[in-house]
Amino acid sequence: MTTYQRIVLATRPQGGVAPDNFRLETVPVPDIADGQLLVRNHFLSLDPYMRMRMEDVKSYAAPQPLDEVMIGGTAGEVVASRHPKFQVGDKVVGMLGWAEIGVSDGSLLKKVDTSRVPLSAYLGVVGMPGMTAWYGLNQIIRPKAGETIAVSAASGAVGSVVGQLAKLAGCRVVGIAGGRAKCDYVVNELGFDACVDYKAGNLFKDMKAAAPAGIDGLFENVGGAVMDATLARMNPFGRIALCGMIAGYDGQLMPVHYLHMVLSMRLSMQGFIVSEHMEFWPQGLGELAQLVGDGKLTYRETIAEGLSAAPAAFIGMLRGQNFGKQLVKLV
Amino acid sequence: MTTYQRIVLATRPQGGVAPDNFRLETVPVPDIADGQLLVRNHFLSLDPYMRMRMEDVKSYAAPQPLDEVMIGGTAGEVVASRHPKFQVGDKVVGMLGWAEIGVSDGSLLKKVDTSRVPLSAYLGVVGMPGMTAWYGLNQIIRPKAGETIAVSAASGAVGSVVGQLAKLAGCRVVGIAGGRAKCDYVVNELGFDACVDYKAGNLFKDMKAAAPAGIDGLFENVGGAVMDATLARMNPFGRIALCGMIAGYDGQLMPVHYLHMVLSMRLSMQGFIVSEHMEFWPQGLGELAQLVGDGKLTYRETIAEGLSAAPAAFIGMLRGQNFGKQLVKLV
Repeated sequence: MTTYQRIVLATRPQGGVAPDNFRLETVPVPDIADGQLLVRNHFLSLDPYMRMRMEDVKSYAAPQPLDEVMIGGTAGEVVASRHPKFQVGDKVVGMLGWAEIGVSDGSLLKKVDTSRVPLSAYLGVVGMPGMTAWYGLNQIIRPKAGETIAVSAASGAVGSVVGQLAKLAGCRVVGIAGGRAKCDYVVNELGFDACVDYKAGNLFKDMKAAAPAGIDGLFENVGGAVMDATLARMNPFGRIALCGMIAGYDGQLMPVHYLHMVLSMRLSMQGFIVSEHMEFWPQGLGELAQLVGDGKLTYRETIAEGLSAAPAAFIGMLRGQNFGKQLVKLV
Repeated sequence: MTTYQRIVLATRPQGGVAPDNFRLETVPVPDIADGQLLVRNHFLSLDPYMRMRMEDVKSYAAPQPLDEVMIGGTAGEVVASRHPKFQVGDKVVGMLGWAEIGVSDGSLLKKVDTSRVPLSAYLGVVGMPGMTAWYGLNQIIRPKAGETIAVSAASGAVGSVVGQLAKLAGCRVVGIAGGRAKCDYVVNELGFDACVDYKAGNLFKDMKAAAPAGIDGLFENVGGAVMDATLARMNPFGRIALCGMIAGYDGQLMPVHYLHMVLSMRLSMQGFIVSEHMEFWPQGLGELAQLVGDGKLTYRETIAEGLSAAPAAFIGMLRGQNFGKQLVKLV
């Protein structure tokens, strides 16, 4: 390879994300200097947080700059190295962005063991999404056996791990997902006790039936009406981990009507960004890898083929068209 | 006195509270048994929480029963006693309700010292409202010197104490209140740094001007648009004590549009009811009494005359027509 493909942010979204917000470029493979290495990315991770980065607004992170490679987690293989700690053939995960090739000085790159856990899983269940689930559930919700835990976007990369961990903790688990197929997966394959289909048109009624004893912990990924239906069922002293509000990522104001439940039920709500809690990652990733290796934690991936498919796959994910972890396969 | 007046809940509100939700009754003064005492109430406290009790809905406390004396805090004097710990002439505060006379077994009655603090203040700044301010500020917001603290219903019984305590803690304090007169009072007499008049029509812009460095702590008493304007200015890792949502007490759903700030700024929000934290009351009330006695904590009262004035005064308070602590003088 003397050239490779990459995708940069061409323009910021006006309302929803459109394919022409991105630009595919072909550029030369760079030479590496001492202390650098070259990675051939095998998988690119597509995640909801990227949507927020596309906006030029005050948030927890700087905006994605225009005309630079889109931010993104990657898993791949070292193909050239002038770095003492990395050898050609090492499997690595990093944040090399929407590109077939990445140059690194090794500082944000991590070698991974693919003998018990597949490489792609380090972008999902044993990566950032899995850690997001682990942190929000264990450090914010802190579930106790017998409690009812609800999680929205339940079939997704984060939600699916939240529910399975809560089941392992002895909880009743209620998922919220869009469509019968996702709900069936959540109950039959992930082992949740119930799943509410928010597209079925009876959100509040179905939530009441799914959580007859109320809800003690909420892991919120969606916001808006989905969040309202869960808020309305919260028990006293319930805990809410606010992880995402994907329903509002296109900039529309997304009203929540049941915030008074935070008062009347004395709830606590905590917004969090898992990358600010790196001190928990070694413990959390270790536990997640163990569970995956032991077959106690399952997951599903939706894989788009080739870098040029990334924009459409990303837009589809924001609309809930993926099933489980959304990846792009680059090799 | 052989008879006294009391007010019972006659009907539950349909939408807003109306005078005919209440019924004034004249009843005989009861004889007291061994272990009981009779209190002549001098002041009745009117508080927003009573509005929620009038509804027959799931909340933190049982609904006010129909045809029984309306719940309420009272301050008065013992006029007859067959209780070993109370003497005729003792000044006492309790929860004897909307009534001129109350019978007590002493269990929820507290003797108070009126030598440095006036009797009525034990229903306000050195009572439940003051403790609400103390708890939410010190145990949830935990202000640090130099931070900006915002409080809504800033001229009210709770808000006025929140702001003065935050000033004593070295914070910049921004109030939100309705109307120029209340805002002038908040700044000129209570010593807040700024006050936003939510009736002036420029809520978001005025809030930005009043809190140029953003807001680190929010003590929320109102909800709705007032809360949105503050949420929109929150700094990373800000803390929100959710104490009241008086804007929605008539049952209307009161949308909040800026909840996404809890995520993007990693805020924490905690709903609380001060009566569930009695372990803090001795310390908090002691500090508040000291500050009042030393002239470091000021307050204002709006006093309605006579029990029959209570319903109108209560309805006025829910509309923000009071100025400071709303009381009814019974003697």
